[in-house]
Amino acid sequence: MRRFGFSTLTFVTIALAATAFADGHAQPAPDDTVKARRALMGTIGYHTGILGNMAKGEMPYDAAMATAAAENISAAATMNRLTIWIEGSGVGAAEGTRAKPDIWSDPAGFETAAMGLETAAATMVMAAGTDLDALRGAMQGLGAACSTCHKAYRAPAN
Amino acid sequence: MRRFGFSTLTFVTIALAATAFADGHAQPAPDDTVKARRALMGTIGYHTGILGNMAKGEMPYDAAMATAAAENISAAATMNRLTIWIEGSGVGAAEGTRAKPDIWSDPAGFETAAMGLETAAATMVMAAGTDLDALRGAMQGLGAACSTCHKAYRAPAN
Repeated sequence: MRRFGFSTLTFVTIALAATAFADGHAQPAPDDTVKARRALMGTIGYHTGILGNMAKGEMPYDAAMATAAAENISAAATMNRLTIWIEGSGVGAAEGTRAKPDIWSDPAGFETAAMGLETAAATMVMAAGTDLDALRGAMQGLGAACSTCHKAYRAPAN
Repeated sequence: MRRFGFSTLTFVTIALAATAFADGHAQPAPDDTVKARRALMGTIGYHTGILGNMAKGEMPYDAAMATAAAENISAAATMNRLTIWIEGSGVGAAEGTRAKPDIWSDPAGFETAAMGLETAAATMVMAAGTDLDALRGAMQGLGAACSTCHKAYRAPAN
């Protein structure tokens, strides 16, 4: 659709020209959103794994590492949900996702569940560096926040 | 190695017993760290793509979506690096990574590069919601921060 030679145009001019011919997608492609969401869940899972392994005694307790893990869960949990939970990127609309339509049909419930993770993660940030007992105490809330949201808003695996 | 019947022990007791027999890994498995780091880069890439597509006119400018994307890049950029850039998870020590040994042999240089992304992301958070011109202006700094770090600390693709 582009009618201009690229070599004769500056970046900005190209950008403006492309605007004129843009096909109007107002949001990222669903497949990209699914990948990004899975990446974010991977980030949360990795850091929860560190804390969980410390809680279970499978990794030596390290206050700095535990605090870093908690901070990163909190950073992921508090990310702006607008780019991540885009309607049309759930089960039935996109591949490779277990995001249930309830996320969009019950936005208040989903927001409550998401806030539950934000709160549990903030609690973990305060607890993780204190000692192993405090970490273990906060782990229960963190696990509960994960499972509460997954039970309501994540479809079963296959 | 466990000598106790699980059914007779509480979670905490199991955890303490497991501590005694833990094999002493003081950090996550390198493969897990690589996956988590790639996930984080995926999160940054997805959101940079949103801003880049708006800058190029391939996605309609949307102040809220642009701000959300910038906030999420900033959240990812400011994550605690302790769990993500673990020595022994780079090229030569782990599979599926392009993280160069220079990250650990030149920690001050790497920190400067990482801070460059933090600063560029913070600038984008302020600019993205203003208007498309402001977004485009901040995009140059963001792209420069990405490429500065990648040139120095990411190995070429195969």
